[in-house]
Amino acid sequence: MRELAYVNGEIMEIQKAMVPIEDRGYQFGDAVYEFIVSYNGRMFCLEEHLDRLQRSMAGLEFPSMERESVRGAILKLFAAAAIPRAGLYLQISRGVAPRNHQVPEAAGQQVIMTIRAVTEKPTELRENGAAVITTEDLRWGRCDWKTVQLLPNVLAKQKAVAAGVFDAIFVSAEGVVREATSSNVAIVKDGVVVTHPLTTHILPGITRMVVLGLCRELGIPAEERFFKTGELYGADEAFLTGTVTEVLPIVKVDDTAIGTAEVGPVTRRLAAELRERARA
Amino acid sequence: MRELAYVNGEIMEIQKAMVPIEDRGYQFGDAVYEFIVSYNGRMFCLEEHLDRLQRSMAGLEFPSMERESVRGAILKLFAAAAIPRAGLYLQISRGVAPRNHQVPEAAGQQVIMTIRAVTEKPTELRENGAAVITTEDLRWGRCDWKTVQLLPNVLAKQKAVAAGVFDAIFVSAEGVVREATSSNVAIVKDGVVVTHPLTTHILPGITRMVVLGLCRELGIPAEERFFKTGELYGADEAFLTGTVTEVLPIVKVDDTAIGTAEVGPVTRRLAAELRERARA
Repeated sequence: MRELAYVNGEIMEIQKAMVPIEDRGYQFGDAVYEFIVSYNGRMFCLEEHLDRLQRSMAGLEFPSMERESVRGAILKLFAAAAIPRAGLYLQISRGVAPRNHQVPEAAGQQVIMTIRAVTEKPTELRENGAAVITTEDLRWGRCDWKTVQLLPNVLAKQKAVAAGVFDAIFVSAEGVVREATSSNVAIVKDGVVVTHPLTTHILPGITRMVVLGLCRELGIPAEERFFKTGELYGADEAFLTGTVTEVLPIVKVDDTAIGTAEVGPVTRRLAAELRERARA
Repeated sequence: MRELAYVNGEIMEIQKAMVPIEDRGYQFGDAVYEFIVSYNGRMFCLEEHLDRLQRSMAGLEFPSMERESVRGAILKLFAAAAIPRAGLYLQISRGVAPRNHQVPEAAGQQVIMTIRAVTEKPTELRENGAAVITTEDLRWGRCDWKTVQLLPNVLAKQKAVAAGVFDAIFVSAEGVVREATSSNVAIVKDGVVVTHPLTTHILPGITRMVVLGLCRELGIPAEERFFKTGELYGADEAFLTGTVTEVLPIVKVDDTAIGTAEVGPVTRRLAAELRERARA
């Protein structure tokens, strides 16, 4: 087991992995990324991550890359690291060129990766649920593309840390509950799972998609529609979904307990089913 | 005259200047910047740029840096390059740490710079004015901090390039005219200069501030207030202000000619006065 980095085809120690200061990812945030995990030595939802990566790149009008070559690079690094429960970060930037807002003709995309053992969420959090705060969504208008425009996410996470809670949930100026700093949000009311529909304001989360699929399979009614903070506060259950987050119960939002302030049955079931599928 | 880079105290060729892939500037856009120019071997408004840099860093709760040390580094690179008409790019990121939204305890801020000869705007553009388009402002909510959250600016600039015009002006969902992709916007109507007030939605431009000061000195009435696209289309004159842009006339917005579609007297006077001050 070795933590490793990858830079444009070359595998190396993470500490040695460097990019030019004029990489547009560094000076403009002109880059997309994915974070992929493995369970028991098998990557989970790799094709779905590649789908989304291609979607983000197309959105930004990056020159297309061979899907096979990206997949091959990922699998090569994954094999070299030999970490059964790995977290692989992949970032593709538009390339390196003297600083200019205008996109350069042929800058040569940069592909970088890191792979490490996953930092698991604390068991206490999974068992007893997380407290979160809400915060105004100050992010840009294309959060459906997975780009490194993440400073508002960083600041919201810091706000949560300062408040002594796990995370912050972005709420629109009109009170619509969008998503958390690195995961989607769902509530359960009267047995129905409700989550924000796919718009430009949330990430099309892969775990969100997997969980909606589980709901269909398990006969749990699920709705993709807007809901506001009042509905969140008044929910029976709430949870986050994400690649590392998996299905993580929320038991408190701002100063309001959700339901009984204990992890509810729908959340518990979806968390268990997801883990089972991922580990299968 | 030498184009040079600076990385954490060391001066080197730009092509050799690298940062770790886990620099938070690269993976989160967790970095601030300034762009400073010189005229005839003298840096223009250096203290004002340092003021704004400190403001951006304070906004993001970066550990403070000694103003003297930042100024010293800038002047050292400027002296080493010996480019009389130089453009100096300075970026400070929160530091290097394994990827995590949460801000690391002590990541060690990264300070990088490049210095090159300024790429002047084409004379034709200065003499005859620029055409621009308007575009919906999809940027995040703290554009008053000068951060590298610039992907929407890149995309808007590309939209302008695709439309065959010089730049794009961000307009709010309510139609309020904010600023361009790397400069502020002002209009002139009945001899009065009007520009967007300092809010979280525009950069507190240094050239904007200098031009407002010139207006006071020269007895040109100026107002900082909101105005919408209708007022822009109906203006007698319009111009952009920025460090490299200086005062650049706008003669066409979308499909509408501004005033007589020629550079107006107020714009021409402010452009000349600014150049004179900068070169003094």
